[in-house]
Amino acid sequence: MEDSPQRAVQGLGSFPWYVGGTQVLGLACVVITGVWMGSYHGGYAWDGSGQEFNVHPICMVLGLVFLYGDAILVYRVFRNESKRNVKVLHAVLHLLALIISIVGIVAVFDFHNHNKIPNMYSLHSWCGMLTFVLFCVQWLMGLGFFLFPGMLMALRSWYLPLHVFFGLAMLAMSLATCLLGISEKLFFSIQHTYSQFAPEGILGNMLGLLLVAFGILVGYVVTREDFRRPPHLEEEALSVHFKTLTEGRGSPTSP
Amino acid sequence: MEDSPQRAVQGLGSFPWYVGGTQVLGLACVVITGVWMGSYHGGYAWDGSGQEFNVHPICMVLGLVFLYGDAILVYRVFRNESKRNVKVLHAVLHLLALIISIVGIVAVFDFHNHNKIPNMYSLHSWCGMLTFVLFCVQWLMGLGFFLFPGMLMALRSWYLPLHVFFGLAMLAMSLATCLLGISEKLFFSIQHTYSQFAPEGILGNMLGLLLVAFGILVGYVVTREDFRRPPHLEEEALSVHFKTLTEGRGSPTSP
Repeated sequence: MEDSPQRAVQGLGSFPWYVGGTQVLGLACVVITGVWMGSYHGGYAWDGSGQEFNVHPICMVLGLVFLYGDAILVYRVFRNESKRNVKVLHAVLHLLALIISIVGIVAVFDFHNHNKIPNMYSLHSWCGMLTFVLFCVQWLMGLGFFLFPGMLMALRSWYLPLHVFFGLAMLAMSLATCLLGISEKLFFSIQHTYSQFAPEGILGNMLGLLLVAFGILVGYVVTREDFRRPPHLEEEALSVHFKTLTEGRGSPTSP
Repeated sequence: MEDSPQRAVQGLGSFPWYVGGTQVLGLACVVITGVWMGSYHGGYAWDGSGQEFNVHPICMVLGLVFLYGDAILVYRVFRNESKRNVKVLHAVLHLLALIISIVGIVAVFDFHNHNKIPNMYSLHSWCGMLTFVLFCVQWLMGLGFFLFPGMLMALRSWYLPLHVFFGLAMLAMSLATCLLGISEKLFFSIQHTYSQFAPEGILGNMLGLLLVAFGILVGYVVTREDFRRPPHLEEEALSVHFKTLTEGRGSPTSP
């Protein structure tokens, strides 16, 4: 990225605060999920026990919430880097999210199978599987449309708004699935004390609200008009940048 | 609206299909909720019984999902009507949604109080109350900013993107709350057969997926660039239209 210009950023005074807010909220969600499973449910293992189940929530919140959100944010955060580099970072972060979420999904299936618990009957599992499958499709289509050398520019321009829209829609689906998972876990674990405002219930509910806040803040940063990358950079991304990517040249956004 | 022009609509061939899709999905959600509560849980009443609880889901899906979604869509559907009329329709549909959702919320509190069930302990209730309070705030701010005669144009322009963003964010929160409600209801009602794929469980899960599909389709129609109202109409809405509204004149979008 040494060939990228450090353009002056104007009118973005509040931008770092918003981005900082997303990171604080996202990390808080990961930490609280980790502490919840660690303190209330005995930590982590990979032996078919309840501790293997605990791998599921932490992986899903880390992968399909925090990393997913950050992968979306890179186009705003690295607004002055070359589009090529940001595109690769976007794909890599999503790949990481994908790998971590696969570990999380395998954990819960393995736990269910060890304990003769049926799979895929709850609304949480239906929404989660739908989100995961769509996420895989979106990742592959993103790869094909935006990083595959032979893709026509017209097709790329056609797909870009769909990719952006479904990216945000799937983040919302992922968050809704997390809320369903929290609710399920609380009804399974503290069925008789949840309604008496047991500390674990309040912790889980707070986690749910933090996840909602994370989603709203990420959505706001990504859709706010004056936080967008300068238009000429976007145009280059759809025309010149791709050429440089395939030829391995430096960033054409350099002055 | 007789003075509004019937402008030629170009490039919108698929638009009616998308809007039709939202209506089919939205009505399907309302009908399935109604049938679920009617067939599996004994119908409706207002006597503190489980039948009073049944008023809650149908009101929330009708109010804070279907009518809420339609209130958002009016700016796209009535793209050639005067902004004044569409604005009033938007506010009236949201007011209807608000009234119906208040009935739904009173129903569940009344049911809980009659049956000595604690209120406001679950993640569903926390998300639902947050969504409802934000919805009320948004409605009042919309009234103040866009229909109150004394509001400065600069403030109106500043608030518009926030109003639009939070309108969509709250629809997503409302849908997530419905999913949580469906999941809770199923774990309460068919705790021992849900994991054996009981028909009621599959019905509830299907309803959840239809709600997700409704939200995605409404979001897509509202955010798709070529479905937007022509820009000049938007500009008029922020300048001339307001004057005509307070003076009770006809639509300035007339030729």
